Amino acid sequence: MSTADPEALSQARSEAVVDSDSLSCPVPRSGHDTIQMGHGSGGRMSAELLSGTFLAAFTSAELAALGDAAVVDTPGGRLAFTTDAYVVTPRFFPGGDIGRLAVSGTINDLAMMGAKPLYLAAAFILEEGLPIEDLRRIVASAAATCKEAGVPLVAGDTKVVDRGSGDGVYITTSGVGIVPAGIEIGPDRARPGDVVIVSGAIGDHGIAVMSVREGIEFSGDLASDAAPLHILVAGLLEAAPGVRCLRDPTRGGLASTVNELAGASKVCIELDEAAIPVHAPVRGACELLGLDPMYVANEGKLVAIVDSSEAGAALEALRSNPLGREAAVIGRVTQGPAGMVSLRTAAGSSRIVDLLAGEQLPRIC
Amino acid sequence: MSTADPEALSQARSEAVVDSDSLSCPVPRSGHDTIQMGHGSGGRMSAELLSGTFLAAFTSAELAALGDAAVVDTPGGRLAFTTDAYVVTPRFFPGGDIGRLAVSGTINDLAMMGAKPLYLAAAFILEEGLPIEDLRRIVASAAATCKEAGVPLVAGDTKVVDRGSGDGVYITTSGVGIVPAGIEIGPDRARPGDVVIVSGAIGDHGIAVMSVREGIEFSGDLASDAAPLHILVAGLLEAAPGVRCLRDPTRGGLASTVNELAGASKVCIELDEAAIPVHAPVRGACELLGLDPMYVANEGKLVAIVDSSEAGAALEALRSNPLGREAAVIGRVTQGPAGMVSLRTAAGSSRIVDLLAGEQLPRIC
Repeated sequence: MSTADPEALSQARSEAVVDSDSLSCPVPRSGHDTIQMGHGSGGRMSAELLSGTFLAAFTSAELAALGDAAVVDTPGGRLAFTTDAYVVTPRFFPGGDIGRLAVSGTINDLAMMGAKPLYLAAAFILEEGLPIEDLRRIVASAAATCKEAGVPLVAGDTKVVDRGSGDGVYITTSGVGIVPAGIEIGPDRARPGDVVIVSGAIGDHGIAVMSVREGIEFSGDLASDAAPLHILVAGLLEAAPGVRCLRDPTRGGLASTVNELAGASKVCIELDEAAIPVHAPVRGACELLGLDPMYVANEGKLVAIVDSSEAGAALEALRSNPLGREAAVIGRVTQGPAGMVSLRTAAGSSRIVDLLAGEQLPRIC
Repeated sequence: MSTADPEALSQARSEAVVDSDSLSCPVPRSGHDTIQMGHGSGGRMSAELLSGTFLAAFTSAELAALGDAAVVDTPGGRLAFTTDAYVVTPRFFPGGDIGRLAVSGTINDLAMMGAKPLYLAAAFILEEGLPIEDLRRIVASAAATCKEAGVPLVAGDTKVVDRGSGDGVYITTSGVGIVPAGIEIGPDRARPGDVVIVSGAIGDHGIAVMSVREGIEFSGDLASDAAPLHILVAGLLEAAPGVRCLRDPTRGGLASTVNELAGASKVCIELDEAAIPVHAPVRGACELLGLDPMYVANEGKLVAIVDSSEAGAALEALRSNPLGREAAVIGRVTQGPAGMVSLRTAAGSSRIVDLLAGEQLPRIC
């Protein structure tokens, strides 16, 4: 099939089947309150876990069909395909959890290529001893995020590792999507004269996670920004089809992302510190913890580099979506040294913004 | 694009870019001999690890392009999409390692849907303290298996967890493939009168892994059968296009797979113990370890259920490939109780073969 007809696509989805080696029919649940090694055996306990937990939350016909792989039609366009492992600790944090993160993050990786996300797959590595209630919450959250995003999970896998060989739950999410004709986005496409836009305040995710880890209560609301951004991106691309680069500043934060874009495009990028939105509680927490918000992870923000002629339209499109309400122009691309990122500080001086050396916030996503 | 032209596909591949949040340009290697937390930071150490280890082994243009997601054209057919996490311990075993396993297993999941595998993606969860030399060997082995199979890895991700929160390395591999028109394979398609074929001797993988874990030397060669089976499947489908069911008997072994097929198809399957090939060292090891080879994992075997009229052609096709040299008819589908699997033993009696209850060999794949 090679049509972009939504009906054909819907048909394709109904033909999809799920990756699972473990069972073929529902089996009654046993009385276990924690994950046991037997849950990963591929036998009855696996079947119970799958039917009692995963199939109860992910109710797509694709998942219930239980084949070895999902078979999906594509509307004949370019396909985007991505994977990411999620190992965040703690697994629940203000504004989200590892399940929401795993779905949002992979949708966002597709969206950053300008793709319309179509299908997701997820593999869970569970540690013996994980409370099943925790797993249920996480799976429910992931399923709710899929529903919110309108992107179904069509394939999955579960493995169990012994106590001390994991940390509760790790999730690897993969996704495929279609890149519409005419969309040309790449990290190497920034040109001198372009402007750099961020879709909102930075550092929310990293600081929300750290606040739980460190047991710190900050004044004001701190919540992860984890969210699927593909609708925001679709609006942006409609208003500003000439967008050059898109990237979500996750691990390593805004500083790392802008460095990556400057390096790939062989351009210099000058940022204006005063223009970069940072929520007051995040700024306060960063001061307390000795962190630079420029390096703190985000999970619901994007950096866009656009031709200056489209900057106004891009900003307007972003701000019209609640997820981009605080979008701002934060810098510009120049002919300075290739790969260099400089920051004009609020005090008026200028400093180099480098890639993070070593770790700042481990296991933030 | 919607053509199945190989040139178009090759073009699509050259447009693909890789999923990586971590860097944009090569960076010199640092002197670390073990994985550090900083290798997962998304900063310079991540860049070093990626360029020094992954990009050195996986040399596809797609991987080197380093975008957020792989963009690939499809030839407009049905798409197969799968994911599997690999947590086998130990990570090196006779006949393979976790890298070969992760590539073979995902290719096989695609092949079991009758799909031609096109692209793979892999996410690595690395434990702090993992020797980089081990990682290199694993990545090299995975890359070699990709090359052997002719299926490129086009997207990846790496995360690092702290010591004690993992076990060296876990790999989640995802794959997409195209299902040719006319192929209709599903676990629910077996019909009374069909025959059950296995492509070779069972239990090799599980026993090879156990031999290392238990520190046991057995007489005779013991080696995992981990191998990509898509070429074997392509030959099978060409000779016997009416194949009803295909599945690789991995976790849970042959017994679990046949149970899954019997359950999904609502048929009874009768197996003939004497017809099931088991290598002598595997049989001996099973006796020593108290294991039933029917439940021991395989990573280079398939179970096919075919119309009896095509059984001869199917067997001949399988045996013409070295990976199917020992293929055998091992049973038939009957109108007995739906979902039941019975085994006629060598002694002439008959017993029920059930799903595995609980675990037999944890972390076997």
